[in-house]
Amino acid sequence: MKEQTIPTRCAIEEALSIIGDRWSLLVVRDVLLGIDRFDSLQQSLNISRNILTQRLLSLEEAGLLSKTPIKPGARRMCYRATPKCMALTPVLIAMIEWGANWSDKEGVKWARVIEKATGNPVGVHIVNSDGMALDISSLSLKF
Amino acid sequence: MKEQTIPTRCAIEEALSIIGDRWSLLVVRDVLLGIDRFDSLQQSLNISRNILTQRLLSLEEAGLLSKTPIKPGARRMCYRATPKCMALTPVLIAMIEWGANWSDKEGVKWARVIEKATGNPVGVHIVNSDGMALDISSLSLKF
Repeated sequence: MKEQTIPTRCAIEEALSIIGDRWSLLVVRDVLLGIDRFDSLQQSLNISRNILTQRLLSLEEAGLLSKTPIKPGARRMCYRATPKCMALTPVLIAMIEWGANWSDKEGVKWARVIEKATGNPVGVHIVNSDGMALDISSLSLKF
Repeated sequence: MKEQTIPTRCAIEEALSIIGDRWSLLVVRDVLLGIDRFDSLQQSLNISRNILTQRLLSLEEAGLLSKTPIKPGARRMCYRATPKCMALTPVLIAMIEWGANWSDKEGVKWARVIEKATGNPVGVHIVNSDGMALDISSLSLKF
């Protein structure tokens, strides 16, 4: 008799189904930086109004952004990052670290995420359940 | 007189210019898991040979994959992750963590990255230069 099993799925695919296009993650970045109006986002990202409208809508539907009037009763709207959106910070910092460390572009000064208290750049560590940093050679995948 | 400045660039954009499409990051995932032949990658990813060929080529050109004969003198080739590709591990683990923690899909069993020694799942921490874990509220961006 066949055992009942729940098929294991890859959470990378799940993540990419939401943020797996170039623009969505850049919209997330900008909203996390406090750019919260449509026009400011369009200017910052330099994309068409159509594409931005689509991306904002799908990020809202995926629960990453909430759209609220800029003040009670106002018509103009602004976008706020939800906790689900804020939880993408480690993904973005891991990308910043990788992009800056492994770029072959010369003479580029990269924007860095820093610790407010010290001004020192931050990074990401892979950690075990005790918070101890791990080397990638000590990792395995469990299906 | 205008000061000479090097414009600051965003390393997220740099990273996304290489891995900013759905397929590239999934190819990286599979190669890191040891799937190293064209046919096996095609089967695992279930994508067209054309798209896979393009993605493998652009990942090779970006220095993430090296293509070598499966044994000396053989015609068949396999793909190996370079150190630049392996350095994407924290990005992938951050995505796995986010995708699994924030998915609204119910009854799904997610594949997890575990510590070989203990079998416990691993995660990512944002850390300062001393390796101390930081909360996102303590971060700032430096241009």
